[in-house]
Amino acid sequence: MSTSRLSLNQITTKGWSLPEAVQGCVDAGIPAIGLWRDKVADTGVAEAAKLVRDAGLAVSTLCRGGFLTATGAEGRRAALAENLRALEEAAELGTDTLVMVVGGLPEGSRDLAGARERVAELLGELAPHAGDFGVRLAIEPLHPMFCADRAVVSTLGQALDLAERFPVDQVGVVVDSYHVWWDPELAAQIARAGAGGRIASYQVCDWTLPLPVDALLGRGHVGDGHIDFAALTRMVTDAGYTGWIEVEIFNETTWDTPGRQTLATMIERHHSYVEAP
Amino acid sequence: MSTSRLSLNQITTKGWSLPEAVQGCVDAGIPAIGLWRDKVADTGVAEAAKLVRDAGLAVSTLCRGGFLTATGAEGRRAALAENLRALEEAAELGTDTLVMVVGGLPEGSRDLAGARERVAELLGELAPHAGDFGVRLAIEPLHPMFCADRAVVSTLGQALDLAERFPVDQVGVVVDSYHVWWDPELAAQIARAGAGGRIASYQVCDWTLPLPVDALLGRGHVGDGHIDFAALTRMVTDAGYTGWIEVEIFNETTWDTPGRQTLATMIERHHSYVEAP
Repeated sequence: MSTSRLSLNQITTKGWSLPEAVQGCVDAGIPAIGLWRDKVADTGVAEAAKLVRDAGLAVSTLCRGGFLTATGAEGRRAALAENLRALEEAAELGTDTLVMVVGGLPEGSRDLAGARERVAELLGELAPHAGDFGVRLAIEPLHPMFCADRAVVSTLGQALDLAERFPVDQVGVVVDSYHVWWDPELAAQIARAGAGGRIASYQVCDWTLPLPVDALLGRGHVGDGHIDFAALTRMVTDAGYTGWIEVEIFNETTWDTPGRQTLATMIERHHSYVEAP
Repeated sequence: MSTSRLSLNQITTKGWSLPEAVQGCVDAGIPAIGLWRDKVADTGVAEAAKLVRDAGLAVSTLCRGGFLTATGAEGRRAALAENLRALEEAAELGTDTLVMVVGGLPEGSRDLAGARERVAELLGELAPHAGDFGVRLAIEPLHPMFCADRAVVSTLGQALDLAERFPVDQVGVVVDSYHVWWDPELAAQIARAGAGGRIASYQVCDWTLPLPVDALLGRGHVGDGHIDFAALTRMVTDAGYTGWIEVEIFNETTWDTPGRQTLATMIERHHSYVEAP
């Protein structure tokens, strides 16, 4: 049994600072970490980069850029500036992947088509910069229940339609089990993503019911819910993806659990549900 | 301004009995009603049929059949029997449309592909009977957040892939704004559905946030949320659909509102958001 491809997305141990998360990974034998910008900022980018480097950890992703749906010149300039800072941080932290949550409908707007156009336009402005930094923009389709308020990109197919407009080293996609498991086109779109070399990240957590009051926090440990991780991992593997398998869990109960226990559960579930097949 | 295509789905006035809902429609000038089997059973099928007929109302749909994902011969037989009863009731009530919610994953199962296969198989057994009754099975794709527990058919494209296996008078699809509004393929799939004569029902209610504790009950009156009903209705109209526009709202606040007030709001929103464009 191996944890050689396992990565801890830092949100999973939300109670830990960046230094604590780094130490937790080292102690548990987890070789990679997905960082969040707010936690990185708490430590300082240079210090965070040094910490993960000295610990011998890989940085699988930086979370996150995006939020590209604002209307108006000012909102657009602000989004560009923020994403350029995120790209620069990603490069300094030593990761090649910036996860992009594209943003929902602007306040009061019902113009879904317009919001999607603005995402495409801003990606077009960002992509060459991503190339310069050696960091790939990884478009994450979010579950359709987040379409209004968080991401107007809802399926892997839609994310690929966007990504394929740009060079493969500049824009890719995230396959996150929670967001895409239900999609009747999933197998075909994962195969398409793999064939084009577009899978920038494979993130895992489970779909559990009932949904909590804050739907964002409903994700469970792999194995606690309804997703067939053997089948999903086979699709991703057959598509040629050999990168990190990052555990990203938004869940109050998980966040109230001691970090070391969470990492032990992650490792156990990785062996039982993700690696075993 | 006209209500000539407006229909009250009976769940919207959940507190009303069937006779009360029929009278409410007559008083408000709403010419059609979508009935629910439990309410029909409270009144008795023959009596319910007489009530709506005597009131001069059309029955736009009967809700609902489906739940076709059970494993094992017994579950399968029970589902067939139940759906045959629903078809018979639909015919007796004078509607040509039985709304089908196909069912989620069976308890403990993660086999989404298998559940979808069973739906296709049972539809194959039911379709000829639907033809005999002169009632169309209207497959309703549900929002992907209901994939695990309620419907493994999540998109209009997927529903059409199923429906198109069968004669057009036997199997169609429901376009329900709440379930499909987010879909990046929506315009193309509505056009496809219309071209094939497969749109059996157009149901409307709005996507409002935050989602309530029971995600099933988050639907709002047209105009209260994030859906662009002008754009959606244009797609459905351009696809050639000229049938009923049925308002179906699951929402505790709406259910706590006096029925007459709910119908007045329905009519006002129909004029402002659905008909106006």
